[in-house]
Amino acid sequence: MPRQELEYPKEPFSTVKRLNDRGRYNLETIHGIINSCPMLHVSFQDPISPFPVVLPMIGQMGSFERPSAGLGDVLDLYLHGYVSSRLMNLARQYPSSTSSPDTPAPPSGLPLTISATHIDGLVLSLTPNSHSYNYRSAILFGHAIPVTSVPEKLWAMELITESIVPGRWAGSRVPPNAAEMQSTSILRVRIATGSAKIRTGTPHDDRHDLDDKMLLERVWTGVVPAYQVLGEPVAGPYNKVEKVPGYLEEYRLDRNGDNRQWAEVDAIKEPESKAK
Amino acid sequence: MPRQELEYPKEPFSTVKRLNDRGRYNLETIHGIINSCPMLHVSFQDPISPFPVVLPMIGQMGSFERPSAGLGDVLDLYLHGYVSSRLMNLARQYPSSTSSPDTPAPPSGLPLTISATHIDGLVLSLTPNSHSYNYRSAILFGHAIPVTSVPEKLWAMELITESIVPGRWAGSRVPPNAAEMQSTSILRVRIATGSAKIRTGTPHDDRHDLDDKMLLERVWTGVVPAYQVLGEPVAGPYNKVEKVPGYLEEYRLDRNGDNRQWAEVDAIKEPESKAK
Repeated sequence: MPRQELEYPKEPFSTVKRLNDRGRYNLETIHGIINSCPMLHVSFQDPISPFPVVLPMIGQMGSFERPSAGLGDVLDLYLHGYVSSRLMNLARQYPSSTSSPDTPAPPSGLPLTISATHIDGLVLSLTPNSHSYNYRSAILFGHAIPVTSVPEKLWAMELITESIVPGRWAGSRVPPNAAEMQSTSILRVRIATGSAKIRTGTPHDDRHDLDDKMLLERVWTGVVPAYQVLGEPVAGPYNKVEKVPGYLEEYRLDRNGDNRQWAEVDAIKEPESKAK
Repeated sequence: MPRQELEYPKEPFSTVKRLNDRGRYNLETIHGIINSCPMLHVSFQDPISPFPVVLPMIGQMGSFERPSAGLGDVLDLYLHGYVSSRLMNLARQYPSSTSSPDTPAPPSGLPLTISATHIDGLVLSLTPNSHSYNYRSAILFGHAIPVTSVPEKLWAMELITESIVPGRWAGSRVPPNAAEMQSTSILRVRIATGSAKIRTGTPHDDRHDLDDKMLLERVWTGVVPAYQVLGEPVAGPYNKVEKVPGYLEEYRLDRNGDNRQWAEVDAIKEPESKAK
């Protein structure tokens, strides 16, 4: 039986308006972009600042209640940080919501926005205004609460470590000791909604430029693929293990291959339908 | 005569508190991180949204009044976008500040926060809590106003295009026509302050783990360099120029070499002094 594909609700602040055929709302696409992004940009309003805060942070989506959940399922975002950082302090101080028969409770937690962007290529067209990137970007909006349950905290620490290098949790000294558990806070973000915006394909130009034969003979147009590479591991000063671990080499080669294949081949294919 | 190095003021919301030896305030370092980052994350508060907005955008710092200004000079940030995008509409609607003898004018423009992050390596230590990235991140806070002067707008369009591939402005169809000038807006952000946070070097672990001989014999520690690569250009469907232009190949090879050198060599060197 075909599964129903879950989508996030289109709120006025989450809907892709400009070039809206690039917008995506299904959970699987959005969660996939977030979980494969090595750095998220997390934004919130600090009452002492006239400007929003934006922090680069490491995070990962998953379900503590149902660890086998897939990318297309309802998931929470887990972020980790230092216990007394501004974000953690704000999230701890954020008042819990209380409901009454007359006023339904607003969601509890600090409102957060999380953004993830992969650049897959430079798209060079005939005129600067038609230049673009191939990219996959996602944005999530949610409410953050510090995780207080020890089992959930440990599970989230493992989830985040495994997202950096699968196999590393078991490959290093675990579990965290009491001081480490105390100094690290984990935030759980309940997602309210989100969206993704994706560009793939080759350059596009306006008809009047495409009809200009002299221009076509002068200006090279195409895509320069862009991708992140993990280079040869460099042992640190107190390393005693001669051989780089198999799980690390396997991950490095797999990821490098996947990133390159995506940027050089898949991201350059024209989407089947330009309109959604 | 040695030049004075300019620094941004340390405001409560812009000061690096956690691991503050990684904080930097000098304009040259911060502007260098912003201008070499292929994608910026721009945040602002939309009155219709309970969450801050975060948009991936292309931008570049420069000085229209003094185009020869260096990275260490006072610069503005220029962002480009579609004329009727939410950000451009908000910036246009933002009330101009008026001053009176009693109340000095606040800065005009929409408050924006701009974040740029480069990941230079995975830092794998003995225990998950000591894992880190080598990274260079910068944040700027400022006020955005749409550019209305045509010469400044054209200058900023060229600045932004040249930041994607130097030589591309002259290598494509310029100047923009009337429709292109109308559909593209440029924002100028006057910077109020900013900071950078940088980690370089090898893994660090706590004494009690470093003293554990069995642990040292079991866990590989070191750095996995990470860097972006621009791959072989792929010609688009209406390209008629057989040879990839020299300026593009030169830029691609230079940038790939610089990125790799930084991640594999320079970012792994221990900083001379851990404390600032």
